[in-house]
Amino acid sequence: MFRNENKQVIFNNFVNGSPEESDMSVRTETVDLGIPEGCDDAVLVKNLYLSCGPYMIGRMKNLEGYFFESFKPGSPIVGCGVFKVLDSSHPNYKKGDIISGFTNWEEYSLLTITDATPFFKIQDKDLPLSYYIGILGVPGMTAYTGFFELCCPKKGETVFVSAASGAVGQLVGQFAKLAECYVVGSAGSNDKVNLLKNKFGFDEAFNYKDEKDYSAALKRYFPNGIDIYFDNVGGKMLEAAISNMRAHGRIAICGMVSQYGLEQHEGVHNLFTILTKQIRMQGFLVGEYYHLFPKFLEMILPHIKQGKITYVEDIVEGLENAPSTLVGLLSGRNVGKQVVLVSPE
Amino acid sequence: MFRNENKQVIFNNFVNGSPEESDMSVRTETVDLGIPEGCDDAVLVKNLYLSCGPYMIGRMKNLEGYFFESFKPGSPIVGCGVFKVLDSSHPNYKKGDIISGFTNWEEYSLLTITDATPFFKIQDKDLPLSYYIGILGVPGMTAYTGFFELCCPKKGETVFVSAASGAVGQLVGQFAKLAECYVVGSAGSNDKVNLLKNKFGFDEAFNYKDEKDYSAALKRYFPNGIDIYFDNVGGKMLEAAISNMRAHGRIAICGMVSQYGLEQHEGVHNLFTILTKQIRMQGFLVGEYYHLFPKFLEMILPHIKQGKITYVEDIVEGLENAPSTLVGLLSGRNVGKQVVLVSPE
Repeated sequence: MFRNENKQVIFNNFVNGSPEESDMSVRTETVDLGIPEGCDDAVLVKNLYLSCGPYMIGRMKNLEGYFFESFKPGSPIVGCGVFKVLDSSHPNYKKGDIISGFTNWEEYSLLTITDATPFFKIQDKDLPLSYYIGILGVPGMTAYTGFFELCCPKKGETVFVSAASGAVGQLVGQFAKLAECYVVGSAGSNDKVNLLKNKFGFDEAFNYKDEKDYSAALKRYFPNGIDIYFDNVGGKMLEAAISNMRAHGRIAICGMVSQYGLEQHEGVHNLFTILTKQIRMQGFLVGEYYHLFPKFLEMILPHIKQGKITYVEDIVEGLENAPSTLVGLLSGRNVGKQVVLVSPE
Repeated sequence: MFRNENKQVIFNNFVNGSPEESDMSVRTETVDLGIPEGCDDAVLVKNLYLSCGPYMIGRMKNLEGYFFESFKPGSPIVGCGVFKVLDSSHPNYKKGDIISGFTNWEEYSLLTITDATPFFKIQDKDLPLSYYIGILGVPGMTAYTGFFELCCPKKGETVFVSAASGAVGQLVGQFAKLAECYVVGSAGSNDKVNLLKNKFGFDEAFNYKDEKDYSAALKRYFPNGIDIYFDNVGGKMLEAAISNMRAHGRIAICGMVSQYGLEQHEGVHNLFTILTKQIRMQGFLVGEYYHLFPKFLEMILPHIKQGKITYVEDIVEGLENAPSTLVGLLSGRNVGKQVVLVSPE
């Protein structure tokens, strides 16, 4: 059997506070480019694109009750990717299939398949393959579910999105415009703010790093308050949004990227407003909403093809750059959905 | 027209932090015991029972965005009561009617009636009249709405109630047993804990003042976590409950009595769990659910009459004791629903 070099990104050990690039190592092993003897229901794949998402920071910690198990020290980082089947011992997958699903941060992976494995076979190859870990993958479904299912937008309502140029936020803003809402986004650079206003069609946007008082900033953009807050950052921005919510406001808790690097999360002091304004705050994990995936695709594919919804990706080339790219998410270095290109098809 | 002495409890001025008895004054004026000339749509009533509720503490402050307007300095305290009509210029009310609704903290009140006035004419006088500001009034509807409508209990689920012997909590516990849930309550004295277990049928109860670590206490009573938390206290107990919630848990925010005396509310540091456990946290004001009142009465009246639901009131006699009674709510001096008896019928 043909053996090949296999570059890998190894998780070194559990992290407290903010992870650093040195918490991962890049090493090169060798791999058989075929399914080993007796290994049923497996595929040997070549990884093409890997997704970098802030939730992965949590997997670098030894947290109790996190929604994903921690990464295994000494093993490759695990995450969503798009990959091509080189060999298969599973009846549903054959050589040449392109799949999106969970894989390892390495060039080639041997993946065993169970009934619970969430593999999606990509049929429609008109669109960039990386979209299947972005707008057509978990971030897309997250924006769709959180905004439409949890926040129940009504025409004319006011919507605030934080980390608004990110993988999820940029879609929430565009969905809000489809729903005929007024939408404002926050982001961490003036370039991102321009993107929000000029590319994604947000009504307004601001650079939170220029604001000393987030609540005052929100009051400027929402003099009559916020109906829907799609929270990607948590902490002080969540607190400020709560202070500015209107009666019967809805808050979808999608992520808390401002907190992932902290050993002790910031306190939110104004939950009393949840009572006085009758706010509904709900956390959600998109994995439980995948029964909506066909409905989501039916909605979004025509919009993409007609150019009514756009998607910005930040594609970094080379597995060796993956550790710094993952760590860079916490400081908002990425512009748009962060993808690592391992190998073009 | 006959003039009578009219004892009143006057609100002195806005309060920061914890109110004290001296923030109110008892004075005696005189009052005409009839409707003044030209005063349409009014009733002159004799107040029988007045309700003391922790939400009233908020009305003593000059808070922006509170759900009730602040009390007026120099005017009587306002709250729910049961009163008897002595004279009326409104076609729907006549002398002798017994009504529950908003009134002033005084012996006799002249109340003007608009279409929005939430007066309830008491027909069924088999039950104690004070019940109409307790189990059959706002606290009853609050427990009913918060528990059944917001928390959607399912048989076998686990329920935690704080301030569990209070006006609302004692009912939530009993409703939880009707719904075949496992229910644990916290309260601030051993007598209250006994009441929870022996009178209201809670499965377990604990004195929070005996616990250094609320989260550890909850873990003892809920080794597999909490499905529903009915929050009457906020602050550190809310934080501890969040830490112990199960996936898809529901939290109804009904009150935050632990915070009302503080100038700066405590921070809650674990909202990330709202995300990882997919928790729904919702604040509510019962006023918006009064379309359910008939359904509520239909449910609860038979249970009361058959002795399947019980209600404990703490009745203090005399308007002159009302200021200390209201202030005492914050330290949990009351056992059960706090009522001030102004005058027996």
